[in-house]
Amino acid sequence: MELDVEVVVDIVRLEEKLIINSLRNIGLDLVITNLKLKPLSWIDKAPYLSVIRPISMQKAVYSACIRNSMNVKTINNYTSIMIAGDKILTLSKLKEFRIPFPETYVAFSSTAVIKAGEEIGFPLVDKPPIGSWGRLITLVNDMQVLRSIIEHREMMLSQSTKTHMIQRYIKEGRRDIRVLTLGDEIVGAVTRTPNGGEWRSNVALGARMEPYKIDTDLEDIVHRTIKAVGGDFLAIDVFLEDGRYLVNEVNGVPEFKGFMNATKINVPELIAKYIKAEIKK
Amino acid sequence: MELDVEVVVDIVRLEEKLIINSLRNIGLDLVITNLKLKPLSWIDKAPYLSVIRPISMQKAVYSACIRNSMNVKTINNYTSIMIAGDKILTLSKLKEFRIPFPETYVAFSSTAVIKAGEEIGFPLVDKPPIGSWGRLITLVNDMQVLRSIIEHREMMLSQSTKTHMIQRYIKEGRRDIRVLTLGDEIVGAVTRTPNGGEWRSNVALGARMEPYKIDTDLEDIVHRTIKAVGGDFLAIDVFLEDGRYLVNEVNGVPEFKGFMNATKINVPELIAKYIKAEIKK
Amino acid sequence: MELDVEVVVDIVRLEEKLIINSLRNIGLDLVITNLKLKPLSWIDKAPYLSVIRPISMQKAVYSACIRNSMNVKTINNYTSIMIAGDKILTLSKLKEFRIPFPETYVAFSSTAVIKAGEEIGFPLVDKPPIGSWGRLITLVNDMQVLRSIIEHREMMLSQSTKTHMIQRYIKEGRRDIRVLTLGDEIVGAVTRTPNGGEWRSNVALGARMEPYKIDTDLEDIVHRTIKAVGGDFLAIDVFLEDGRYLVNEVNGVPEFKGFMNATKINVPELIAKYIKAEIKK
Amino acid sequence: MELDVEVVVDIVRLEEKLIINSLRNIGLDLVITNLKLKPLSWIDKAPYLSVIRPISMQKAVYSACIRNSMNVKTINNYTSIMIAGDKILTLSKLKEFRIPFPETYVAFSSTAVIKAGEEIGFPLVDKPPIGSWGRLITLVNDMQVLRSIIEHREMMLSQSTKTHMIQRYIKEGRRDIRVLTLGDEIVGAVTRTPNGGEWRSNVALGARMEPYKIDTDLEDIVHRTIKAVGGDFLAIDVFLEDGRYLVNEVNGVPEFKGFMNATKINVPELIAKYIKAEIKK
Repeated sequence: MELDVEVVVDIVRLEEKLIINSLRNIGLDLVITNLKLKPLSWIDKAPYLSVIRPISMQKAVYSACIRNSMNVKTINNYTSIMIAGDKILTLSKLKEFRIPFPETYVAFSSTAVIKAGEEIGFPLVDKPPIGSWGRLITLVNDMQVLRSIIEHREMMLSQSTKTHMIQRYIKEGRRDIRVLTLGDEIVGAVTRTPNGGEWRSNVALGARMEPYKIDTDLEDIVHRTIKAVGGDFLAIDVFLEDGRYLVNEVNGVPEFKGFMNATKINVPELIAKYIKAEIKK
Repeated sequence: MELDVEVVVDIVRLEEKLIINSLRNIGLDLVITNLKLKPLSWIDKAPYLSVIRPISMQKAVYSACIRNSMNVKTINNYTSIMIAGDKILTLSKLKEFRIPFPETYVAFSSTAVIKAGEEIGFPLVDKPPIGSWGRLITLVNDMQVLRSIIEHREMMLSQSTKTHMIQRYIKEGRRDIRVLTLGDEIVGAVTRTPNGGEWRSNVALGARMEPYKIDTDLEDIVHRTIKAVGGDFLAIDVFLEDGRYLVNEVNGVPEFKGFMNATKINVPELIAKYIKAEIKK
Repeated sequence: MELDVEVVVDIVRLEEKLIINSLRNIGLDLVITNLKLKPLSWIDKAPYLSVIRPISMQKAVYSACIRNSMNVKTINNYTSIMIAGDKILTLSKLKEFRIPFPETYVAFSSTAVIKAGEEIGFPLVDKPPIGSWGRLITLVNDMQVLRSIIEHREMMLSQSTKTHMIQRYIKEGRRDIRVLTLGDEIVGAVTRTPNGGEWRSNVALGARMEPYKIDTDLEDIVHRTIKAVGGDFLAIDVFLEDGRYLVNEVNGVPEFKGFMNATKINVPELIAKYIKAEIKK
Repeated sequence: MELDVEVVVDIVRLEEKLIINSLRNIGLDLVITNLKLKPLSWIDKAPYLSVIRPISMQKAVYSACIRNSMNVKTINNYTSIMIAGDKILTLSKLKEFRIPFPETYVAFSSTAVIKAGEEIGFPLVDKPPIGSWGRLITLVNDMQVLRSIIEHREMMLSQSTKTHMIQRYIKEGRRDIRVLTLGDEIVGAVTRTPNGGEWRSNVALGARMEPYKIDTDLEDIVHRTIKAVGGDFLAIDVFLEDGRYLVNEVNGVPEFKGFMNATKINVPELIAKYIKAEIKK
């Protein structure tokens, strides 16, 4: 029947299990669409709303896009997943909405990467526009390492992993903050401290999370980012440098296990309530 | 100065040379941005308008996106290049605008591809969502070939080339029509007849082009497609099956050498005039 | 102490577990070297004998080669694993020893593949020189499928998977026979019958095995193949076509689970006894 | 007729042109086999001798191997091309022949790479076993760079580029010497000095070559390396560290343009004479 809520998954992590349980607990009729088992199509029976949770960004974009075209609301909608999923699109939206972010160059050839490196100066951060959990993000201390990274990336087949984002490295006194948002509301915020021996603050790389008290500056930049990217449920990564907030990345299919442990906030329950409210509209 | 027109290129084909010459002939100040030589940035000096011509779809999307975020009009804008450049996004837009296209399934796993194959029946067409010149598009006659294609695609690293679009094969009596559009106007149309030994009608694979007389049905579907995809300069590929038009693909950075030869229409001159008119607005 | 037997593994399958148990049962001191956990080196402490069981052919070659260079006997030695692991090297050895095999061309470019296809005629078999479990081996019925396979292979990065072996397809009345050998002895033989819907007779693709009675012709070709390839423990795949045996492939790190089920021969026990005898030499 | 000399090529560099000209000048009947144009086969008409010059190591091994199996002498034979073409096989042969080389670990997993890194200490050299012109060879100053290299290599599809050779970095006072050999004779030797900004001494990366006077220690290690690797025409790369020679790499399809410029030795002429002498045997 038409009020079904669909959850689209490929690999079911703890996050997906928690969301599915919370949606069931709140009394919603669920359809689980497992991309490993069945194809999607534009003639599929439309659910009322679809929660998009594939781990693969590309699969998330495609599922959301097909459902949106059938006039199905998705959490998140496909444009926000796409913008958040590609860091070049993210920074472009931030630029359009005049939201500050670290100085960055985009380079498609070894010559261009080297020029960008000379422009930014060392140490710098080199990352591909697509990718999660900090993967391939490299702190580059000198031109020799940059050359090695260029050679490695040239041997990749996907244009996305071949593309270099060359970014100013924010070092001393930096804080890494992750903010979770639902609709126009801020769910909470945590700091992320890298594991010893790592400079990257990704939880997948062992970073430690602690609750962070939101101030009005952070609130302001987060609300503008929600507006820029769109989407109902986002994780927004912000650097604090010399008292100034800079948006670094946005995640359109957020993981929230570490966030829950650090803040004791029941995120899946909030998601379920949010979806129930959406349905009543 | 602010009225510069930028042409963004990576490999300069005949098409790019013709566009650059026509823009110069009409008296515009050009800046050629070669992605092989320099990085792009959100702090670049903004041109007035940017013509996006990289061969690589991803580079085209990224260049357009960065320029659009700087409030620079691009031909085409980034959303239309992205929608045209990914066949799953294209079909989704067609669906949203109720424009007919061949029955298609999207599958992300071998199990799902086989189900889609059973649903559609053989022969069928299998293609990845991203790619040009007909590359990797396979006419699949039976399950054994489908299994082999699945195994080959599993060994690719990019999620886009791993994804299968399983499409009904339109065989007998089919005509392949390519329509070129500029703004809301139709520039012209050609039929494309595959080279002997090929079933694909891509010019890169030797297809022959001949002028095609546009009728009101074609006009209608083309105008709706322009609206669906957006973009100033598009190539729209349409099948004619049993008197009915179906949109197959859209190209957001169109090649037009073969079209010019077949129709004697001076496409780059029209593009230059269109851009001049845009600037005067 | 010096009489240690090393078993080198990466992923431990049933086969490796059985071998390890049999070696322990027969009273040998084992060292398990897991390539996932530690690097190899030319200054490692040398075992007396090393059983090479990584699933990855390349890892098997490298491990055997390092151990052989330390004057350690390996089962199998590195040249036999390498020759068996690459079908072009295998056929070259068969040629050198005048052992019959199906007519085959080796092609490195699309032009060369198409010429080879015209030479052999359709249907033909296209396979890369490296790979297991029948993967990427395609029964090609016509030039259109061959072109699609060429395009797919061109997008692979490894030269080995880019290389095409174009082979005459042996169809009607064919029997697929697998012979297991230990030293100069034949352990046994089975036929392999493809699963319905598959033409490939790989157990990984569902093929059924049944015991096969060895005749003197088969005995002869197997003994010559052992001599050609070298190695203590081999699986030799033979086609029977019109009463004539043709060697197709050799496996230098054989799986034997299916063989054991079909023949009730305790392969790991035989291996353990063989190794004990080797040590006493 | 049977006394034809075959030259097998894919991309024809200056080196191949010079060899072909010298062979013609000395009066030999040549057949050029271009792997881009035709397939190879075990039923090809056999030349008398085959000069193996494909740039791709894999294609060189395969061509040599097919010709050797037809009882055709190749320069070089397939085992020497293979041993020289894969640095793990090279070091294994050096070990077997008790020829000194820099301390090296071979690692197949991130855990194993990190252990090898801890064992060797920083700075260290990380390289894949296969590859030319110094590509992907990285001077790694700390664990963070090593982790980034691991992540990049994990995204490669070929097992060879995924495999890490972790090697002691030879720094201060090092000299890089390249020795060219033909049969049992040393053609000459040069030092290679890296281009400013590069630490790698590859000519492809701008290194400068100067003649180097061979002493008896170098002569000795070179002759033992020729014996270890086999092959008629080799380039042997040797480090001089604190008065001691260490073999680093061997090239089985040597480039010699830079060597000719530095030494004024006419290498292709020497090759042609060598081949003429071989034919008379």
